[in-house]
Amino acid sequence: MSQPTFPKNSWYVAAMSDEVAGSKPLGRKICGESIAFYRSHQNEIAAVLDFCPHRGAALSLGYVEDGLLVCGYHGLKMGVDGKTKEMPLQRVKGFPCMKSYAVEERYGFIWVWPGDQAQADKSLIPHLEWAVNPEWAYGGGLYHINCDYRLMVDNLMDLTHETYVHASSIGQKEIDESPVSTQVEGDKVITSRFMENIMAPPFWQAALRGNGLADDVLVDRWQICRFSPPSHVMIDVGVAHAGHGGFDAPADKKASSTVVDFITPETETSIWYFWGMARNFKPEDQALTDTIREGQGKIFAEDLEVLERQQENLLAFPDYNLLKLDIDAGGVQSRRVIDRIIAKEQVKSSTIQTDAPLQTVSF
Amino acid sequence: MSQPTFPKNSWYVAAMSDEVAGSKPLGRKICGESIAFYRSHQNEIAAVLDFCPHRGAALSLGYVEDGLLVCGYHGLKMGVDGKTKEMPLQRVKGFPCMKSYAVEERYGFIWVWPGDQAQADKSLIPHLEWAVNPEWAYGGGLYHINCDYRLMVDNLMDLTHETYVHASSIGQKEIDESPVSTQVEGDKVITSRFMENIMAPPFWQAALRGNGLADDVLVDRWQICRFSPPSHVMIDVGVAHAGHGGFDAPADKKASSTVVDFITPETETSIWYFWGMARNFKPEDQALTDTIREGQGKIFAEDLEVLERQQENLLAFPDYNLLKLDIDAGGVQSRRVIDRIIAKEQVKSSTIQTDAPLQTVSF
Amino acid sequence: MSQPTFPKNSWYVAAMSDEVAGSKPLGRKICGESIAFYRSHQNEIAAVLDFCPHRGAALSLGYVEDGLLVCGYHGLKMGVDGKTKEMPLQRVKGFPCMKSYAVEERYGFIWVWPGDQAQADKSLIPHLEWAVNPEWAYGGGLYHINCDYRLMVDNLMDLTHETYVHASSIGQKEIDESPVSTQVEGDKVITSRFMENIMAPPFWQAALRGNGLADDVLVDRWQICRFSPPSHVMIDVGVAHAGHGGFDAPADKKASSTVVDFITPETETSIWYFWGMARNFKPEDQALTDTIREGQGKIFAEDLEVLERQQENLLAFPDYNLLKLDIDAGGVQSRRVIDRIIAKEQVKSSTIQTDAPLQTVSF
Repeated sequence: MSQPTFPKNSWYVAAMSDEVAGSKPLGRKICGESIAFYRSHQNEIAAVLDFCPHRGAALSLGYVEDGLLVCGYHGLKMGVDGKTKEMPLQRVKGFPCMKSYAVEERYGFIWVWPGDQAQADKSLIPHLEWAVNPEWAYGGGLYHINCDYRLMVDNLMDLTHETYVHASSIGQKEIDESPVSTQVEGDKVITSRFMENIMAPPFWQAALRGNGLADDVLVDRWQICRFSPPSHVMIDVGVAHAGHGGFDAPADKKASSTVVDFITPETETSIWYFWGMARNFKPEDQALTDTIREGQGKIFAEDLEVLERQQENLLAFPDYNLLKLDIDAGGVQSRRVIDRIIAKEQVKSSTIQTDAPLQTVSF
Repeated sequence: MSQPTFPKNSWYVAAMSDEVAGSKPLGRKICGESIAFYRSHQNEIAAVLDFCPHRGAALSLGYVEDGLLVCGYHGLKMGVDGKTKEMPLQRVKGFPCMKSYAVEERYGFIWVWPGDQAQADKSLIPHLEWAVNPEWAYGGGLYHINCDYRLMVDNLMDLTHETYVHASSIGQKEIDESPVSTQVEGDKVITSRFMENIMAPPFWQAALRGNGLADDVLVDRWQICRFSPPSHVMIDVGVAHAGHGGFDAPADKKASSTVVDFITPETETSIWYFWGMARNFKPEDQALTDTIREGQGKIFAEDLEVLERQQENLLAFPDYNLLKLDIDAGGVQSRRVIDRIIAKEQVKSSTIQTDAPLQTVSF
Repeated sequence: MSQPTFPKNSWYVAAMSDEVAGSKPLGRKICGESIAFYRSHQNEIAAVLDFCPHRGAALSLGYVEDGLLVCGYHGLKMGVDGKTKEMPLQRVKGFPCMKSYAVEERYGFIWVWPGDQAQADKSLIPHLEWAVNPEWAYGGGLYHINCDYRLMVDNLMDLTHETYVHASSIGQKEIDESPVSTQVEGDKVITSRFMENIMAPPFWQAALRGNGLADDVLVDRWQICRFSPPSHVMIDVGVAHAGHGGFDAPADKKASSTVVDFITPETETSIWYFWGMARNFKPEDQALTDTIREGQGKIFAEDLEVLERQQENLLAFPDYNLLKLDIDAGGVQSRRVIDRIIAKEQVKSSTIQTDAPLQTVSF
C-alpha cells in the first residue's frame, strides 16, 4: 500500500445538518469509507459502515424505524454501535459487529472520525465562534469536485488566483501586486495579504452598500487565510474605508466576513467541498444571507474546472515537481503539517489494529 | 485465469423472440461472448460471433439478405455455420471459420449455448408448460442490471425482500414472520413459504378482483421458488380464499400465477434479466396481460438499485463472508448447484479444446 | 513501453484555423501530448505543453494578453518557447522551460510536430495545390472518433465500404464489382478503382446537376486514393459523361473533386478526423460549398459507429489476424509505410533524448 494522502484519525465535516433528515439515511463516502448517516433516537446522528452484515446491501437505501437503521433488502435492524439488533425470525447475537463511526452534530454540520475509533475525541472538534455567537450569520453550500483535497487547500491558501479565476467579482490587480506573508504556528498555518488605498471590487462594493457604507471611496482590503488540520481553511476577508485601521477598523467603517471551507476527501482524487461565509453584520437579515450564498456559490463554481483539469494534468505528469513560490507558501506549509500528521498516524497504525477483519457466522 | 462464475455449457435465454425481427440483427453479449443474432432462411434464428472475419467489424451492424448475414462494412456474407459464403470479387474458401452458436427459438424466447458447441443438446432446454398450454397466458420484459447473476438468484430465492423492497405492492409483514423451508432435488432447489389467514396485499387484491373473487376476506398465500440451472427461477405464487386448500384450492377460489425469471449473465458483473408472469386464468384477456406486465415491471424495477449497490459493496469488500441464514438457504443451495456444474465443466474443458484459436489467411 | 502505433516526428493537422481565435486558447491532445494552441503576436499561432510550470494548471483555460499565454489560475505568462516570461511579483528566470511545439498555420489548418522538436522542418509540410489555387474551393469539418487512426486509414484506402456504409448517397453495386489496383511509390500508396458506363449514384447526380450537366446518362466513375505519411489520405473522385476520358475528360464533361482526410491520433485509440472536399468547379459558389459540406458531413458520420465498434472488437480479440485481401491492399501497404517510419524513429530516439525530464526550481 502506498502512503495515504490524508489523515484518517481526524474530524471531518461529512454533511450539512439538513442533509440527514427524518427517516431517510444519507450514504456518503468519506476518506474512502462508505458510511450510512442517519438520525437515531431523539434525532441523534449516527454513522455506520454502509454495508449490511447479512448480504452486503447498502444500508443507506433503507430507512429508520424506532431509532434503528432498517436494511431495505431483508429488514435487518442495525444499531448505532454496528451491532445488529433484530431481524425477523432470526437470532442475531452471533452476527458480526460492523464498523460504526464516532459522529457529532455541531455548528450545523455533521462531523465524523473515519479512522481508528478508539482515538476519536470530541474535544478535538474545533471551536467555531461564528457558529455559536448570535452576532454572526452563516450561509453556505456543498460542491463535489474531482481533485485531491490538497489542491483545494493550495487554492484557498493562495488567493492570488482571485485575480484570474474570479476576475469579475472579488478579483483585482492589486491582489497579485501585493506580497503575502506566511506564518506557521504549531499545526496552524496563516497566510496574510493586505492592500491599502484601493478601489473595492464588485463583490465588496455590494457588501459595503449592504452594510450602509459608501462604495466609491478608497478602501483597505485584507485576506487572512488560516489552515488547520486536517483540511479546514477559514479566511478573514474584508474592506474598510481607507485609513481607519483596515482589519482592525470599527464595525461602522468596514464590511468583513469569514470564508468558511471544510474540505473533506471522498477518495484520493475527489472531495466534498463545504463552502460558506460567516458575517458579523446584519446577522438577522436572512435575505442578505441568501444573496451572499448565491453570489459566493457562483464565484466558487468558477474553481471547479480549474481544479479538475489541474488534477488530470498532475496524474499525467506524476513526477513533475510543482514550483513552490512565496505565494504558494501557505499551501506548502499546510502540506508539511498534513505530512507530519500522516507520518505520526502511520507509526501508530503499525502497532494498533484499527480495522478488525470482518467476521461472519456460518450457515 | 480465475474460476469462472457461470457455466458456459448450458442453455441461456438470450432474447425475447420479437427482439430479432426482419433483416435487422441483434448484437448482444452473453456470458462474455459477443454474439450477432439474426433470422436466416425461413425466419430461422441463427447466432454467430459478432466479429467479421475480414476486418473485425461488428456483424450485428449489418443486415440479412437471402438468409445470409451481410457485413455492413465491406459486404462479406456470413453463413449460420460461421463460414463466409460470399464476398464481392473474393474467393472465400480459405477464410477462417468463425464461432457459431447453437441457438433455438422456443416458448417466445431465443435460447443460446455459449460454451462448447459440441455439447449443445436441444433436449436439455427445459419444458415450459405455461408457454405451450393454451390455458396459460404470459407477459414479460427485460432489464439490464449491473450485478453478478447470482445476486439476482439470491434475490428470487428469498422473497423476504418483498416486505421491504416492494412494500406497497406484494410486500407484507406476514412474509418475514413466516419461516421458509428449502429442499434440494438433484440440480433443483425449492424454497417454499406458506402464510395462512392473512389479508392479501394490494397486488393480490387486484388479482382476486381480476379473477372475479372477493378481495376483502382472509386468504392463504404461497410462494414456491424453484431454481434450476444455470439460472432459471420459476416461482409459483398466489392467494386462495382461506380454508380451501391454498396452493391446491380449486381454480374458482384462488388467483395464482408463475413468476418467470431467466437470469442471463452478460459479463461477470452484469446481467440480462428476463422477467415475466404466466397465469392460468383468463388467458385470452390481453388487456389483463398488459396490466399485469406493467405492474410487475414497476415492482421489479425497485430491485435494480438495491442489486447494483449491493454489487458495488461486494466489490469493495471482496473478502467479506456473506451470512447464510435460513432465509438464504435457497440462494446458498442454488450456488452450490452452480459451483458443482462449473467444477464439472472445468474438468472437461481441461481435456477438450473448446475455443479454437481464430485463424486467418495471409495476404 | 510497447511499440508506439504512430510516428511522432511528423506534421499533423491539429485544428482548423478558425478553432483558435482571439484571446481564447484551444486545448487539444495530439499524439498523446496535451497541447495549448493560441495566437501570439501578430496573430501568429503558437503551441506549448498544456501544463503551467507553476502548479500544473491547464494553460488552455487561460487567455492571451500581449502575445503571451496567461495562466488562468495565478497569472503566469508563458512565451511561445515554453519559457515563463512574467509572473506577478516573481523572478521567473529559474522557472523550468516547458515543451513548446513547432507549429505552422497553412492552408486553413494548424499543423503541429508533436515529437522531437529539433527535427521539425516546415519544408516537410505537404504542398496542397487545392488550398492555394483560386480555381479550387474547399469546405470541411471535424469529427472525434474512438478508434485507432489506422482503422480510418484502412477505411479510406478501401472505398468498397461505400456500397454498404453509404448505400443511399455515394455507394453503388458497381463499386464492389470493380477490382482495385494498388501501387506503392516510396512512402506514398495509391489505390485506384475505375468503373465505366454506369449510372451515377445520388450524390454524383447532384454534383452533375450542380455543374450544369445531365445526370441521367451513363458515366465513367473513378476513385483514386492517395495515402501519404503520417496519415493523410487525398482521394480524387468524380464522374464524367461516358466515353470522354473519365478522369482525364475535359472540365465541361465531368464533376470531380478531391476528398481531403487528415487523420490525427489523439491517443492510441482515438482520433481527430478532419474531413472535407476540394473542388475545382464553381469555386466562388459559397452556397454550393456549404451544401456539399453538409452532405459530406452526413455521409462521413455514417462511418463513426462502424469504426468504434470495430475498435471494440479488435481490443477484445487482440490476437486475431485481420484478413488482407486485394481490396485491403491500400490500407495494408499504408500500414507498412507507417511501420517503417516508426521503426526508423525508434532507432533515432534510442540515441537522442527527445523528452527531457521536466525540471523545477525548489522552494
